Amino acid sequence: MNIDTLIHARWIIPVAPDNRILEDHSLAIHNGRILDILPTELAKENFTPESEHHLDRHALIPGLINAHTHASMSLLRGLADDLPLMTWLEEHIWPAEGRWVSEEFVADGTRLAIAEMIRGGTTCFNDMYFFPDVTGRVSSDAGMRAAVGLILIDFPSSWATNSDEYLHRGVEVHDQFRNNGLITTAFAPHAPYTVSDGPLEKARTLADELEIPIHMHVHETAGEVAQSVETLGKRPIQRLYELGLISPSLLAVHMTQLTDEEIALMADAGASVAHCPESNLKLASGFCPVDKLIKAGVNVAIGTDGAASNNDLDMFSEMRTAALLAKGVSGDASAVPAFTALHMATLNGAIALGIADETGSLQVGKAADITAVDLGDLETQPIYHPVSQLVYATGRDKVTDVWVAGKQLLHSGELTTLNSTDILSRAKQWQSRIGEKDEIIEFSHD
Amino acid sequence: MNIDTLIHARWIIPVAPDNRILEDHSLAIHNGRILDILPTELAKENFTPESEHHLDRHALIPGLINAHTHASMSLLRGLADDLPLMTWLEEHIWPAEGRWVSEEFVADGTRLAIAEMIRGGTTCFNDMYFFPDVTGRVSSDAGMRAAVGLILIDFPSSWATNSDEYLHRGVEVHDQFRNNGLITTAFAPHAPYTVSDGPLEKARTLADELEIPIHMHVHETAGEVAQSVETLGKRPIQRLYELGLISPSLLAVHMTQLTDEEIALMADAGASVAHCPESNLKLASGFCPVDKLIKAGVNVAIGTDGAASNNDLDMFSEMRTAALLAKGVSGDASAVPAFTALHMATLNGAIALGIADETGSLQVGKAADITAVDLGDLETQPIYHPVSQLVYATGRDKVTDVWVAGKQLLHSGELTTLNSTDILSRAKQWQSRIGEKDEIIEFSHD
Repeated sequence: MNIDTLIHARWIIPVAPDNRILEDHSLAIHNGRILDILPTELAKENFTPESEHHLDRHALIPGLINAHTHASMSLLRGLADDLPLMTWLEEHIWPAEGRWVSEEFVADGTRLAIAEMIRGGTTCFNDMYFFPDVTGRVSSDAGMRAAVGLILIDFPSSWATNSDEYLHRGVEVHDQFRNNGLITTAFAPHAPYTVSDGPLEKARTLADELEIPIHMHVHETAGEVAQSVETLGKRPIQRLYELGLISPSLLAVHMTQLTDEEIALMADAGASVAHCPESNLKLASGFCPVDKLIKAGVNVAIGTDGAASNNDLDMFSEMRTAALLAKGVSGDASAVPAFTALHMATLNGAIALGIADETGSLQVGKAADITAVDLGDLETQPIYHPVSQLVYATGRDKVTDVWVAGKQLLHSGELTTLNSTDILSRAKQWQSRIGEKDEIIEFSHD
Repeated sequence: MNIDTLIHARWIIPVAPDNRILEDHSLAIHNGRILDILPTELAKENFTPESEHHLDRHALIPGLINAHTHASMSLLRGLADDLPLMTWLEEHIWPAEGRWVSEEFVADGTRLAIAEMIRGGTTCFNDMYFFPDVTGRVSSDAGMRAAVGLILIDFPSSWATNSDEYLHRGVEVHDQFRNNGLITTAFAPHAPYTVSDGPLEKARTLADELEIPIHMHVHETAGEVAQSVETLGKRPIQRLYELGLISPSLLAVHMTQLTDEEIALMADAGASVAHCPESNLKLASGFCPVDKLIKAGVNVAIGTDGAASNNDLDMFSEMRTAALLAKGVSGDASAVPAFTALHMATLNGAIALGIADETGSLQVGKAADITAVDLGDLETQPIYHPVSQLVYATGRDKVTDVWVAGKQLLHSGELTTLNSTDILSRAKQWQSRIGEKDEIIEFSHD
């Protein structure tokens, strides 16, 4: 049979079914979808591919899904470090955003972010930012899968002036991408402390109507919870519950402050959590009780958060930190074993975004969203177990090839749909505009 | 003036003095030592080098110092994951070591480890393992700086049968490397729970006599502390104090269980700590109170631990995890800022090993132990602050060139003193000997 693409790999790790490693298998792609996964010998007999790849030191895994980011904030990477969340937000990030955020900022920042993500094996990201129409267009043009957040916040921005305008523009963006196979949307109320009840209820109604998820920062810090208790007499999750937001549509990000009752509430509701371990550590926000959430049956995905608070969009590093930190926090070295971490970084993200029929695992019929990782270098030898190497010893630098919906976006380490030189030069332009270089760097010679 | 080597760099970060970044400077090397650090324009006038390097997107930093590892355990990388310390040690690592450890194992494993470390920007490692003579010889042959641990443990091994033999062979190894400019030694009693009082006292006496440090696992887990309290009526640190081991010579590794009094004791004694954040997380051993230790004035260095419990020897990742975790554990986002993390991963290691006159910072007169990191790729743009990028956004894959004592060990990513092909092939041989591959990997096709 004539097909588009055939990839021969040393290992294929499909993620679903669980705990499975296929050796010397091949993956057949046709019309953007996974047509078959079968032993290489058989594949060579059955298929005549237009394009053929021999990855004999590599593991094929589902493309990683970054369940929470603010892509265009990559332009603010490293602008303000070693500061707590509220100081960081109120004294550095929000002022910089107020001054600089525009369509151009979002386009250039998102391109920089997507380039980084593709080079690092990520094939889908769940975004929350202003100008989501631009994020969606840039992603679609690059062949990248994205869930675009329809941002909602009480204060005015260059994107919208009030809640109704945020919601209205959000619905417009949703309509714009309705027939785009790569771009989905989610309502994205920023956080309980920045969105009041009225707009939250409207967002819930609209999300139900459009059948899209709600993507929201929830219980990121103890301060946020204390403030809500003080001013409203209840914890934010209780308030969201009363407003009808704790549901299978909810993807609650961060969740570092959780009682056992709140964990049970999330589990009963079928809600998802996006765990951002490195951002939570860097901003000293607290520890998400990942092991407890998983054991309660909550779907936990992994996100990097924006590069301004991480400071990268490296899902390999994030997956590893998630696996390591869960053990440290739970005091149980068997918490979040390697296979679970890979599951969180792939299929759980797809489940949270409502796109698990389309992506998140290497299964026949799903879109061909695939990442190839070279396990042949010194750093990953010997190989007693490839999944252990992927989670505990590999870095994103070992990613060589990436496909989204069957289209190859990374070819032997080279981006095929984005111009690195142009992206770099624009990043440098933004740096000289935004930067306070002279204030930060001391020139000296002794 | 005619000199050996001149490196022109976009940035030079000397680490000492603190918080300093030199832009468009050059570093002159002659006879293995740093001869000068000066503006590039001036350097071109003053020096005629035999070898010249233009690193115009790079930062030069002191070579990273891995303050705790078991290099040859790289051959056991990923053999047993997601298990607590005692199960991991008693049911997997010790049996594997009992069966396989030999001179050949240590030589091949150490070569694999050194190759990984050089590629990742590490120029010195502090080792603890059997056959330290082999570790020292392999390191010296590769041009790598190492502090070789003179292992001491109560049970017999292929290296020695009893405490006196361990000590005797240790002194022999010390003598063997007495005149080697790259190799120093430290007494390395394994841990309080594996070495009894008599041998500990002898090790202290000999270490004092030879003027070398004592490198020891201390308070790695709560279980170890509880067991000591139960059997001896005192915590291990109290016991070590009474034996005279809490001194400026001590490099105590892990230290996840510490009272405020114990922190003060360490500070008063001028002892050092080797913090191994990823190993502590992975084995769920507990959290080292790094921020408290630093604020009390304790010298805290960073180590990866062996690749069997990490699972890599990546000091960039370890430095980043140390910076992030200190914020999470202390609840203070300003704890261990980027410059401090870099200091810990370089100069503090040299101080702990008693070789700060020789290495750990880029200062005139010190050995030329240098790592060049390319900050020009997408992943580190924009650059508001190069040290922030080094700690929070860079990976070891951005290391391009490494010098130890003026000799270039990594040249544009290529090892100059080690044969990668040979190292890989030996690692694969050990894998097939040691591995229980058929038990672990499920072959299947659906």
